[in-house]
Amino acid sequence: MNIQDMTRDEWVDHLYDRIHKLLDDGFIRQAQIILEALLPADQAEIFSDLSIVERRQVLMGLPLEDIADILEKLEDEEVAEIASLLPPEQLADILDEMEPDEAADLLGDLTPTDAAQILDLMEDREEIRPLLLHPDETAGGLMTSEYMALGRQMWARNALDAIRDWSPEHEYLYYFVVDKNGTLLGTVSLLQLIKAEPKTEIQDFMDRNVVSAPLSADQEECAKLMSRYDLTALPVIDDDKLLVGVITIDDIVDVLEDEATEDIQRLGGSAPLDKPYLLTSAWEVTRRRIVWLLVLFVTSMLTSNVLAFFEDTLDKVVALAFFIPMLIGTGGNAGSQTTATVIRALGVGEVEKKDTLKVLWHEIQSGLLLGVLVGIAGFFRVFVFEGDLALGLTVGAALAMIVLCSNSVGSLLPVFASLIGVDPALISGPLMSTLVDATGLFIYLSVAKWILGV
Amino acid sequence: MNIQDMTRDEWVDHLYDRIHKLLDDGFIRQAQIILEALLPADQAEIFSDLSIVERRQVLMGLPLEDIADILEKLEDEEVAEIASLLPPEQLADILDEMEPDEAADLLGDLTPTDAAQILDLMEDREEIRPLLLHPDETAGGLMTSEYMALGRQMWARNALDAIRDWSPEHEYLYYFVVDKNGTLLGTVSLLQLIKAEPKTEIQDFMDRNVVSAPLSADQEECAKLMSRYDLTALPVIDDDKLLVGVITIDDIVDVLEDEATEDIQRLGGSAPLDKPYLLTSAWEVTRRRIVWLLVLFVTSMLTSNVLAFFEDTLDKVVALAFFIPMLIGTGGNAGSQTTATVIRALGVGEVEKKDTLKVLWHEIQSGLLLGVLVGIAGFFRVFVFEGDLALGLTVGAALAMIVLCSNSVGSLLPVFASLIGVDPALISGPLMSTLVDATGLFIYLSVAKWILGV
Repeated sequence: MNIQDMTRDEWVDHLYDRIHKLLDDGFIRQAQIILEALLPADQAEIFSDLSIVERRQVLMGLPLEDIADILEKLEDEEVAEIASLLPPEQLADILDEMEPDEAADLLGDLTPTDAAQILDLMEDREEIRPLLLHPDETAGGLMTSEYMALGRQMWARNALDAIRDWSPEHEYLYYFVVDKNGTLLGTVSLLQLIKAEPKTEIQDFMDRNVVSAPLSADQEECAKLMSRYDLTALPVIDDDKLLVGVITIDDIVDVLEDEATEDIQRLGGSAPLDKPYLLTSAWEVTRRRIVWLLVLFVTSMLTSNVLAFFEDTLDKVVALAFFIPMLIGTGGNAGSQTTATVIRALGVGEVEKKDTLKVLWHEIQSGLLLGVLVGIAGFFRVFVFEGDLALGLTVGAALAMIVLCSNSVGSLLPVFASLIGVDPALISGPLMSTLVDATGLFIYLSVAKWILGV
Repeated sequence: MNIQDMTRDEWVDHLYDRIHKLLDDGFIRQAQIILEALLPADQAEIFSDLSIVERRQVLMGLPLEDIADILEKLEDEEVAEIASLLPPEQLADILDEMEPDEAADLLGDLTPTDAAQILDLMEDREEIRPLLLHPDETAGGLMTSEYMALGRQMWARNALDAIRDWSPEHEYLYYFVVDKNGTLLGTVSLLQLIKAEPKTEIQDFMDRNVVSAPLSADQEECAKLMSRYDLTALPVIDDDKLLVGVITIDDIVDVLEDEATEDIQRLGGSAPLDKPYLLTSAWEVTRRRIVWLLVLFVTSMLTSNVLAFFEDTLDKVVALAFFIPMLIGTGGNAGSQTTATVIRALGVGEVEKKDTLKVLWHEIQSGLLLGVLVGIAGFFRVFVFEGDLALGLTVGAALAMIVLCSNSVGSLLPVFASLIGVDPALISGPLMSTLVDATGLFIYLSVAKWILGV
């Protein structure tokens, strides 16, 4: 295939094949030259597909900056593995080339002894040390200590000079303005500094309406703030309102993806995985799922009790049993439709706790509509294929009521979870299906008793 | 409560109450002053909670720029509603103040006649017209025509002068370098321009390794590129590689949220909603759900056929029926756990089609582990409470096999969907539960026949 016609993925695969072949044939430098010409994300993808021997070959003699870029893009587990291939002095030099927040994350994945040894060998250790203090999933754990704070009385010209002399690993559009204590006062953009009269004080044109996050803010909170206010940099402040770090938008894009992944895994009824799926062992996957599976297994015993309660009815009309899976399946489906929609609406802030009754009313309306439609379908199914009018009426009426009930339960459960401060995705998905199974059976067999008179 | 102690949400609610009260008392200007002092996202939130009458009061005399900011932040339907409150001339002026991509989106939500009339009244119409040509969910529909292209032979100093004279609605860190035909050659950052010798040509220090998207690229594709390469601006090129627009990171953050919302709604078994949940009518919600609910209802008839097939067995051992919901429920739960994990791993690119066998092997391993654990629990449940060893063995063995089978089906279905080019989230979630119900019943009753000999 012609290189021109390749998608980006095919092109990266193609380059991997070439590099692999070059290394095989002993042309290590040539392989490195190709790798050096690529963007960090592509370098990392190719690198993580190489064998340990090949990785070691490629690493020798690759510029430190490229190694730093590759490490920033790899998964934590892969990084720890590669770090172990390198002598401590070289690793310390590489960490100095990385953005401080990424370097801190990497140190956090090493054993405490290794981390301490390498930190001592680093030039930027004072920049990194404070970042090691905060939990990974908070503003303090996400922020970088690489930011430039400008004094409020600084001239625009002097600020530009300071920025010109600064050589950060990352490029910044926004700079933060502080008073002499370090209290956050406002922001200026690079463009504002360029446009300003050289001798104006920054406080005369800075933007004072600045949004910030406290050190302890949850990463999801930070993502919401940056998305809501369209920020590319979010300043982090301590309890005394002093500026202590900055969160950049690229970290937030990752957070948004991770949070959506967690929500989806929880909705499926599993504790979220810490690592990418294929890097998680089957044993670890099992551990994340077993608790919930057993909890649901125990609660689903409720359904056998309901059935035992209606034993007489079932004995007299055995045909009733044939439709049990169909009825509770439909109830479960209607419930999942509702729960998924409501959980997501809660997650992105479209629905708040005060909207509980609105949501319920919404779902009662569509539950009635859906119930009537599915109920009619159910009636005809049984009436036409079994030729039994009474049984058809039973199944149809039960379906309508089950769908209405599932929609109500499916809408209340996530709101209720968020009221008591539990992640809605955690309990709503599979718990709902169990609840709906039991109530669905109860409705079905009660309707049967009443219509069929058994 | 003290303002200092309020969360951001409480503070916005508090301001809403004050503005509402001021308008009630006739102090319109005072209400506007509070509103003008806020950030656009907060202005929009308060504004959309006001009544139509209040909105009209507030709009009169609010600076055009503030109105533009508010409209950019509101939902499409609300914007169209507000647009109808304003005279065409004023609306045209407001659109001129908006970012071109947002203005184009707004025009797209009006009737074609209204849109044409207002476009003719606008100053920036030539900037907006090309943006109206592309579907909303493609690179062409997302991009803005507000970008600055720099000639490759331009001096750094002249480029800075040009940037200084330019007054975009949005602030940009990256600028794009083109040749005299407009072909995209590279990027420079504002910082690079400031640091460069004033008389260096841009081509001597620009970054040539530039990632771009074609006009027709899907928005999800664009989001993946920006997230992969940590970009804050993605240039869009036409078939001749000419630069035609730029996608900014704030749009991509919205795309990421929307795509995750769609995935979650589809996983729940519903066609994705176009608008926020509470703005979607119950009728529309019903329409999005009914097709899938009926399809699943029809496929679930399979379960009655399986039960009818085993009618003899069920007649002889009625107690078997009591455990049907528990068994197929557990199978469904194990299947959802797998499907949700695999779908998300496919979505974020952790798993690709070539990994099918790896995924299957992963799930067979954890399916075996989970199956044995749940099977043991099931055996004890029946043996201890019912005192029936043979029935206990039946339930335990069936549970183990059902969980293993659910894990396998749950892992293959999403991969299979993506192989035939269908969105895995669309068919896997609820279809899986129906498949698992039928196979689960078949396994359970076959095991019963064999162990109990009936």
